[in-house]
This record gives sequence, C-alpha cells and structure tokens, in this order.
Amino acid sequence: MRNLSAVLTAASDVQIVERPVPVPDPHQVLVEVRAVGICGSDVHYYEHGRIGSYVVEQPMVIGHEASGVVVAIGAEVTDRAVGDRVALEPGVPCRRCEQCLAGRYNLCPHVSFFATPPVDGAICRVVAIDAAFAHPVPGDLTFEQAAMAEPVSVGIWAAQKARITAGDRVLVTGAGPVGLFAAQVARAFGGVDVTVSDVSEFRSAMADRLGLTAHRSGQPFERDYDVVIECSGAQAAVTAGMSALARAGRLVLVGMGADSVTIDVPLLQGREIRITGIFRYANTYPLALDLIASGAVRVSDVITHRFDLEHTEDALTISRRDPEALKAVVTPHVGGPPPGGDLGSERSR
Amino acid sequence: MRNLSAVLTAASDVQIVERPVPVPDPHQVLVEVRAVGICGSDVHYYEHGRIGSYVVEQPMVIGHEASGVVVAIGAEVTDRAVGDRVALEPGVPCRRCEQCLAGRYNLCPHVSFFATPPVDGAICRVVAIDAAFAHPVPGDLTFEQAAMAEPVSVGIWAAQKARITAGDRVLVTGAGPVGLFAAQVARAFGGVDVTVSDVSEFRSAMADRLGLTAHRSGQPFERDYDVVIECSGAQAAVTAGMSALARAGRLVLVGMGADSVTIDVPLLQGREIRITGIFRYANTYPLALDLIASGAVRVSDVITHRFDLEHTEDALTISRRDPEALKAVVTPHVGGPPPGGDLGSERSR
Amino acid sequence: MRNLSAVLTAASDVQIVERPVPVPDPHQVLVEVRAVGICGSDVHYYEHGRIGSYVVEQPMVIGHEASGVVVAIGAEVTDRAVGDRVALEPGVPCRRCEQCLAGRYNLCPHVSFFATPPVDGAICRVVAIDAAFAHPVPGDLTFEQAAMAEPVSVGIWAAQKARITAGDRVLVTGAGPVGLFAAQVARAFGGVDVTVSDVSEFRSAMADRLGLTAHRSGQPFERDYDVVIECSGAQAAVTAGMSALARAGRLVLVGMGADSVTIDVPLLQGREIRITGIFRYANTYPLALDLIASGAVRVSDVITHRFDLEHTEDALTISRRDPEALKAVVTPHVGGPPPGGDLGSERSR
Amino acid sequence: MRNLSAVLTAASDVQIVERPVPVPDPHQVLVEVRAVGICGSDVHYYEHGRIGSYVVEQPMVIGHEASGVVVAIGAEVTDRAVGDRVALEPGVPCRRCEQCLAGRYNLCPHVSFFATPPVDGAICRVVAIDAAFAHPVPGDLTFEQAAMAEPVSVGIWAAQKARITAGDRVLVTGAGPVGLFAAQVARAFGGVDVTVSDVSEFRSAMADRLGLTAHRSGQPFERDYDVVIECSGAQAAVTAGMSALARAGRLVLVGMGADSVTIDVPLLQGREIRITGIFRYANTYPLALDLIASGAVRVSDVITHRFDLEHTEDALTISRRDPEALKAVVTPHVGGPPPGGDLGSERSR
Repeated sequence: MRNLSAVLTAASDVQIVERPVPVPDPHQVLVEVRAVGICGSDVHYYEHGRIGSYVVEQPMVIGHEASGVVVAIGAEVTDRAVGDRVALEPGVPCRRCEQCLAGRYNLCPHVSFFATPPVDGAICRVVAIDAAFAHPVPGDLTFEQAAMAEPVSVGIWAAQKARITAGDRVLVTGAGPVGLFAAQVARAFGGVDVTVSDVSEFRSAMADRLGLTAHRSGQPFERDYDVVIECSGAQAAVTAGMSALARAGRLVLVGMGADSVTIDVPLLQGREIRITGIFRYANTYPLALDLIASGAVRVSDVITHRFDLEHTEDALTISRRDPEALKAVVTPHVGGPPPGGDLGSERSR
Repeated sequence: MRNLSAVLTAASDVQIVERPVPVPDPHQVLVEVRAVGICGSDVHYYEHGRIGSYVVEQPMVIGHEASGVVVAIGAEVTDRAVGDRVALEPGVPCRRCEQCLAGRYNLCPHVSFFATPPVDGAICRVVAIDAAFAHPVPGDLTFEQAAMAEPVSVGIWAAQKARITAGDRVLVTGAGPVGLFAAQVARAFGGVDVTVSDVSEFRSAMADRLGLTAHRSGQPFERDYDVVIECSGAQAAVTAGMSALARAGRLVLVGMGADSVTIDVPLLQGREIRITGIFRYANTYPLALDLIASGAVRVSDVITHRFDLEHTEDALTISRRDPEALKAVVTPHVGGPPPGGDLGSERSR
Repeated sequence: MRNLSAVLTAASDVQIVERPVPVPDPHQVLVEVRAVGICGSDVHYYEHGRIGSYVVEQPMVIGHEASGVVVAIGAEVTDRAVGDRVALEPGVPCRRCEQCLAGRYNLCPHVSFFATPPVDGAICRVVAIDAAFAHPVPGDLTFEQAAMAEPVSVGIWAAQKARITAGDRVLVTGAGPVGLFAAQVARAFGGVDVTVSDVSEFRSAMADRLGLTAHRSGQPFERDYDVVIECSGAQAAVTAGMSALARAGRLVLVGMGADSVTIDVPLLQGREIRITGIFRYANTYPLALDLIASGAVRVSDVITHRFDLEHTEDALTISRRDPEALKAVVTPHVGGPPPGGDLGSERSR
Repeated sequence: MRNLSAVLTAASDVQIVERPVPVPDPHQVLVEVRAVGICGSDVHYYEHGRIGSYVVEQPMVIGHEASGVVVAIGAEVTDRAVGDRVALEPGVPCRRCEQCLAGRYNLCPHVSFFATPPVDGAICRVVAIDAAFAHPVPGDLTFEQAAMAEPVSVGIWAAQKARITAGDRVLVTGAGPVGLFAAQVARAFGGVDVTVSDVSEFRSAMADRLGLTAHRSGQPFERDYDVVIECSGAQAAVTAGMSALARAGRLVLVGMGADSVTIDVPLLQGREIRITGIFRYANTYPLALDLIASGAVRVSDVITHRFDLEHTEDALTISRRDPEALKAVVTPHVGGPPPGGDLGSERSR
C-alpha cells in the first residue's frame, strides 16, 4: 500500500510524496482517508509557513478535517471494525493531565493535532488515529459531509461556550464556512433571529439560501442580540458585535487573524457582557455528525470546490483565486468511487 | 427636622444646604443616615462634574454607600420597624422590566441609584428608600462597617461572576478599597493563594495586614491563577492579569477608568479565557453584611479617614491630599453619639 | 359592561354569575378575555373543592390559561395600549421578597395566582392584571393559541430546569397536553429522539402526528435518555423514567397526583441522576408565544374541545366524558366573532 | 520484597497473605503503602461479602483510602519520582469512553477501583497505580491525614454537586467520618450556619469540637437551609432534610444503606428542590489535600483508632465494638517509623 501524501515543505510549497504506511498502536485504527476539508489555518501555513509560534520546520502532511474508512484496527480496539466509516477528530490529547481529566481535553498541553507542526495531517492515503477519535458516521452521510464535522464542531463549541438556549437571538459575524456552520448550529441550539453579517454579497446570498438572516456589515442592526459569535477575526466585527449585544449578552471570539482587539470597557461593564475565546472543541463530534445527518446543519452547499490529492496545492490557493470559494475539499482516495463522495479535479459547485 | 445635605452643584463645588425631609411612600422607610463611604465615583463627579454620559446638571446630593437608623415607615411596610439599623442598597430598580423579572435588577434601565444624576444621594440627615433595599444590620456592626456593604457587594458580585469556588487561585489587581474587599471576599468564597497586586508599598502592607498575599505590580508571578479580579482600571493590569491566568481562567473587569482595553486574542483563545464586565451588583447585601459581621471581610482597617457632614468636601479630596488614604467615611448625624460610629472632623486612623 | 363569570362555589358546582367590572390599578391593564384553557388543576378544584391545602372556601372564578384584548390601561402603564392582544401570565408576584429579587418569582410566597383560592381566575368577561404580566401576542396567533402559552410555559420551565441542550435525548412520560407541549419544547431546545410515553393509543397517535416518537408505557426503551420530563404523576412513570436515564441524566417532576414517590437510591447515586421538582415558571411567556408563533410548538392539534362561557361546567367535565379529550378551551367573549378564535358550544375538533 | 496483604476471602474472613510485588506499567508508579483508612464499604464487604451486585467471589485485598511513598516509577512517568509522598486516588478510569472524555471519569463503566470486586485494594505493602492518580502530598501532612483525601473527596464532590457557595446555609445529616468531613468542606466552600445532625451525643460533641453546629436528630430546626448533604442513608434523615430545605434548595444523597427512599412530591415541587445522587468523585484530590493541609478540614480528630496490617480484621470490626469509633486507619508499613504516621496495634485516640 502506497501512502501518497500532500506534504508542506515550506511556505508556498506542497509536494506529493510517498510516506510509510503507519502501523496502528493497540488502541488505534488505520483509516483510508476519503475526504479532507481545507481550513483557513491550512491556507495560513501554506502562505506563511507558520501560525504564530507554530513553525513548519520539517516537511509536514497538511489537512485536519478528515473522514474515511477503517482498514485495520489495533489489538485492543473493540468498538470499531474494518469497514466502519469514520470522521476523524484531529486532536488526540494525553488523557492524563489536569485539563484532560477535567474534560477540557482541547486545552491539553500535550495534544497531538493533525497538521500542527510537527504533527502530520490527513491529506494522504492512510492515517492511524486513536479509535476513540475515529467517530462512526451515520449511514447516509457522504465522506465530505462527514469531514465537515470538524468546522461544525467549532460552531458547536462556540454555541456551548455562549450557552445558547431556546429563544436567544444570535448574531454571527463573518459568513465564511465556520460562520455559516456556526449560525446553523446556533439555530439547532434553539437560537432565533439567527443573523449572519458579512461584507460579501455572495456570502450573504449563501446565508439566505441556508435559511439564515443575512446582514450587510456596517449597516445598523434592527434588534439587539443575546449572543454574538465572532467568526471574522476583524476588529470592526468585534466592535459592531459588542455594540449589538443586549444586556447580559455573550460574545464568543472564534475568528483568528487579529493579534489583539480593543474592547469598550464601559460597554462591557454597563451591559455585563461576557467574552469567551475558544480553542478547538471537546466532545463535539457525535453531535456534529448528528446535526449534519438530520439536516439541521447543511454543509454541502458550503462546499464549493473539490480536488483530488494531487491537486492539494490548488485547493490551498482557491480562496485567493475565486472570491466565491467557501469550503474546498480534497478527496485523497483513488481507485474506485468512494461510497459517499466524488473524485476529480476542481469542479464547480 | 432639618435635612442638612451635602450637595454637589458643579465640579469642585459642594455646598451644605437644607433640603426638605422626604415623606416615605407606602413601601418606603425613612432613614436617619449615620455613615456614608466615599467612593471613587463620588470623587470623579466632584472633580469632573460627570462620569461619561452622566452629567451633574442640577444640584445633587452626593454619596451612595450608606447606613443608618429607620425613623419612620410607610403604610405597607411590615418587615422593618422604627429603630432598625439598616444598610442602604443604593439602587432601587423598576421591578417590572425584563431585567428585573429575571433577577438581574442591577441592569434595570429604569433604576434609581443614589448620587447618579439626577438622583440625589445619601450624605444628608435623612433619606427615604424602598424598605426591601434597607437591609437589617447584624447586631454588633458599627454603622461605618455596615456602610461598607456597598463596596463589599462589588467584590461579591465579581466573585459570583467569576464563579470563584474552593481551591481557585485568585489574583486581584489594584489594592484600593474595592480590591482589598474583593480579595477578602474571594477568600471567603474558598479562593486560595489570594494575591493582591499594586504599585503602592503602603497598599501592599495593608494587603499583608489583612492576611492576603501582596504582589508588587510589574514583578513576575510565581504561579498562574484561575481567576483575576481587575480593580485598577489600568491597561497594564489587564494585560498582566490575562497573562497570569491559567487555562480556562476567568477575568472580571471591575476597575473603571480606561475607556477601552486591548486584549491579546491568541492568549484569550489559546487558554479559553472568559472575560466579564460587571455593573454594580444584585442580591448581595445580606451576604455582604454577614461577611463583615463574621470577620471574613475586615473593613475597618481600610477606613482610613472620617469626616462629619459639614466636611464632606474634605472627604472628597482626601485621596488627592494623602497618598495613604483608602476609604473615607462621612458621618452625617449630629446630636448624641450614634450607636455604632464616631463623629468628628478628620481623624487619623 | 357586565362581567359574566364562571364561579366555582363548591365541589361540582359552577355558577354563571355577574361580577363587578374591576378597575385597573395604575400599573394594571383591563383585559377582555377571549380564550381560557382548562387545566387539570381546574378540574381537580371542580371535582374535589381543593388541592392539598388550597381549599375553595368562598366562590371563586375558575381558569388561569387566558388571553384577550386590552380594553383599558392604568395611569402609569406606558408599554401596553388599548386594543393590544395579550396572553395573561396568571401569577403576579410581590416583587419585593428574596425570591422575586433573585428572579425566582414563581417561588414568591406572596404571589397572587389566578384561580388559586382565594384569588379569582379568568373565565369571565374582563379581568385586571399587572401590565407586565399581559404579554403581547405575535400577530397571527389565535386567542386560543395564545392561551396555550401557559401550559407551554410549564414545558419551557421543565426544559430549562433540565438544561436541555442540542443533542440531548429526551423522554417525556405522559402524553396529556402538558406532556405533548413539553416534548415539543424539548425539541425546540435541541433535544433529539424526543419520545413521549403513554398508555393511550389515542394520545400516542397524537404524539406521532406532532412529529414526536410515541412509546407505549411498559414497553422496554430502545435507548437511554439524557433527560426525562415526567408529566404523568404516576409512580410507575417515575420508576421507568429513572431506569431509562443515562449516566448524569436529569429527571424533572412536572406531573402532580402522587403525594410521594419512591426513588431507587443506588440507581440515583450510581448514575449521578439529578431530580428537580418544578413549580409553575418564571420569565417564560415571551418564549412560549414565540415557540407557538414559529410553529415549533403546535398547540392547535391538542385543543380538542371548545365551549362558550355558559358551558364552562361542560368544559370541566369533558375529560371524564371523552377519553379522547385533551385540551378544552372556554371562549368567554360574546357579541361579534373574536379576531382569532371561534365561539360556540361543544364542537368536535 | 514481600508484599504482605490483607485479603478478604469471604464474609467475616480476612487473611494476611503474601502477594507478588506488582511491576508498574510504563505509566504507573509503585507505592509503598503507609496508611489506609477503613470505609463503611470495607466493613460492608467484610460483613456481607458483597455490596449489591458487587460480590467478593475470589480473595480480594481490602481497603481503598490509601497513601504512601513512591518506590519505583514506570518508563514513561516524568512527573513523579522515587521518594514522593503520595495520596492514592483509588479509581483509575479507562480514559477513552464518553464519560471519561467529558470529565466525568467517576462514571466510567470500565473504571478499576481499589477493593471493588474483583479489583484488589490497598491494605498491603506495595501497590502499583497510574501515576496521575498518585497525588503529591503537601509537605507537612502525615500519611494518615493524606489517606483521608479519599473521604474528604466525597465531601468535596457533594459540595460541588450542591453548588455550595458563600452564604449558603448548609445542613449535613449524619455525623460519621464522611458527614464530619463534608460539613467542614461545606464551610470551606463558603457555607454558613453549617450544622451536623446526628442521634449520637458522642458524634455531636465531635461536631462541636470541629467548630460545627451540632443538631440532635429529631429536634426541630431553627432555620431553613439552602443545602442538605445527606450522609446517613436513613429515610428519616432524607425526610427531615427535605423539609428543612428553603425554596430552591439542594439535597445531595451521599449516604448509602437504603435501597430506596420516599420523596414528598408536593414539597419537592413547591420549593423546586433539586436532588442529586453522587458516585465517588472526580478531580478532587488536589483540593482535598490542600484543604487538609490548610487546616480548613481537620481530619486527625476524626481518626479514633489505628491498627497495623496484621490487625486489619480488628480495624474492620471496631465500629461494631466501640460506639465511639469514627475512622480507623491501618498502617501497613513495618520496619522503621514512617515519616508521618504511627504504627502499632489498636491505640486509643
């Protein structure tokens, strides 16, 4: 078995190379990868060779939003079987530190996370992963839908941190894939008047298509909101979002980009606003898959481009080339159509 | 009965004038005021004639940290009696709006709050107040101790918003009266390693005297903290406090002063820090009085200066004149020693 | 204006009498009643003349699930107007006690609640009620739908106490009106696999019609549940519900009837189950009306019988006479068709 | 090295036998046991050979409240060293199941817990345990104090489930070791008026000595309580505790014994009481050790009897023989005085 892999060697350089096929540990499964979404962080590593203090110093397989089929299991794995379709939760924690034991395994300082230097990612033929992090996929999801459990998990985590409950009015700033997923998740948590704010007409139309209320950034808001999920990383969105919050409102900072933001203190205090930053997610995958399976979160519309493994670099650059690109997916598998997805070079939506 | 009152007419001008004695509404009590603490906001109104959008446009009685004795009760008051010693919660809400009905009456947009323009405050002989906001004082507290229920309430509210529980390591930045009270409250909530950070050697010594760990601002911290209560209003303290927070740490912004603060986003996200601003407090007075009565929060050491009503202006300026001033208290009553406080012009601690 | 009223004078005796038209207090509105749902507690008062320690000792207007039109407003009411369509929250608390100030006004010991002796209820032409408890009805709801905000509120309160969030599997035991509403509310909170258990084939069919999963009481459950909302008041349902709970599951006791229930302690401890009893609700009406308006909670199907005021006694006995009766509604208004409901004697659904 | 062990072979039969010295796994440490507290469950296994469905079917080392000294470490252990004094958390979970990943590892269905059939316990010379569950002991604690981290953890877990916070009035029913520890923990969480109810005069005197308020079971209560921690397992205590609860009160069932309890439903509902059962604890050991070290929870007074390993059977029967027995501790180590405890046969307190 050849393990063809998309390896980032340095900024702006992806090479398709063969890597050894991993041997699963006793608690791991070996998974044939079928679909991998491209995340903004992948693009950032590609463009800059680093994200903050995480530097690509040695060749690293890229990609962390993955799904596939179990092709082998470790000796002690009892609850996964060869042939299982699984979505791969990309961060496997140490399970022994204070954070892990408290259920906050996303904050584990020893976590091993796909495509975060120096850990290899998932755009390859096969990966090994702890069985508990290879989540069974409900029957009729495609692989690319299942791969979306990763960005949908970000939306779930934001909703949980914001404690969204029935009747909460929710504003999401930024209508990229994460924002569009987070808004639908907010609705599934009982959020109402779920509004997505963006500067792009195309993205606003997408929000509208998904049954969300589209709002053009910069326009005044018609109501105030109990919750703002900030997915743009822009200071202007943080400022606008905070001023749109009702008393006792909650703001969750999801978007990355700004190293710092400026907060209006009298506003924060006068309305007793609560701000939370989030880092990945924990215990969200089963719910993410269920929300996608039930149709509560529609992900397929948001997947605008698809590539095969050999065109991974195209996938990493499509957002720069096509302003109407939202989510790109790479489908590493070759030889026979995969059960739930399609192969091919770049295809229009 | 003459109702001598300390009236702020404009910035830097306090006049001692007679005001009518108020007639209590059916649900109100009439209280002879015995002690009123001077708060930083009183000083700010005195120095600037405004705080943000709150402008002193007509003469206003100053002061809102008050205690006294009930001298008359309204027709429908059944649970207060003449002679009761009471601490006055200064903000009486509308009781009918969404915030009030939800128990967040501190966020009531219709609240009437002592010494917030145009509402008169409490440095006067007698005030009328809703009976439910005149809280019975445990037997052996002095009036000046009882008046401290107000700033202690700020500390309680901060501790509640931070969800301080047993074992939480707590840092308080800023060792003014609010910080010194908040730190003791944090300890009463089960906080450990409770540390107070300040630039002042005098204030650090006071923290030490109160059994708290003193930390000199700018020095590195020996440990990380689960909770930071920011009471200085300074950007440097916010920055230092955030970097001292452990994963899943909570930061409460109590201090006023800065119109805005800059927040490190990767830090906020990477540690999943939660920031909350607070505005006054709700349902805290009984606990505040109990904490003072039990000795869990020692307030007397923090009261460094005392004035009679006629010297209210001196009370408002003492913090500018004496770098070792912490809390000043005005004792409006004359004629016979009050049961639990002392009268007189400025006296050393 | 004649204020024809349905008055319970003793067990099994309802008389239609004229009562004075009330004069609204400054903070009250006068409401022409258009629809009043019949609750199990109304039936219990009718049949027994008492519920526990609440005894009908003097003639009392019956009914507490009401909606209508504002026909006059008190002097200080600014946010309601004549002509407003309103749903009446039946319990007006004192606003001054510890429970009220903490936002738990449903636990106010001084609450005045419609049709709880000796307080008159709402099956009459006009009632006066505090304006804040006359909630504006979204435009296209009928009056009988709006009246259902009361039992829907019970479901919301149960969901909030159970902390139902997205992905929680929910079982409701008892498919009466409250159970059928609570189940739909649970779904609106993000609950999944929402199942309603009952012995009645008719009620199970109704659950099915509402898109819920019907389960026949006594049959084994196919899965375990995170939340059980017990709406039957039967020991067997409590026992079955508890054993159907997953680890860390929550059980909310809504149903009344049993004076006591027996709980399996090793089960409670071994799964760390949390049990909460609920008493009415607080701050739920706006959400209840929104859930009905959005169609998330369908109430019309559950309303099986309608009566005019003169036939109130028929409404109180229909559940004994017709095993397929669910919710009966009395429409007190005469003279011209009401905007959103229908009049008439008993009519089939 | 001989591993002398106290083995329960059947009801009422403990034999002192040699067992093999375990070899630590890569993540384990080997601990020389210095002190093991005797728990009611140990006594129950001794007297009945079973607890519910847990049956002693093969010889089992007894005891699970242990402390000792690390004498060897596994290959991958980096944060423990030979010579470390440690308290042993007796339940090591699977770390892979839904409960573990959510931070509720006490509910892990695959947990391996000392002295729960068929898992061996800790009354022996040496045990191997996962390093993360061998918690470092603060410097000046004795081994028998450190061993008390186990029952103190039960009290912490109860306090956390009850959400005890500053100002909560707390009643503990049952003044055995767990009750006496739980009451002190409640005080450390900020609980006030902490009262311990028991029938025994001796135990009430102990409560008094520990600074708690003693209450004789059956007498009326002078106040109501926000929280009741039920540690007796008796129906009468549950009933009395529930009726002593204030509105919105919380009841935690810690005591075992009754297979079922009967609950007053109108009381549960009318006051919106919340009942929680608890099963062991999670993430409590560091706090337990800190509370003991700070003196907030005084454990030494409660340790009334001490035995060496050879007299383990005496330790298991002392509570039947001496009505003033509270906590018995077995000190397995021989040869040289242990750093922080004492050896010997039964000794008076």
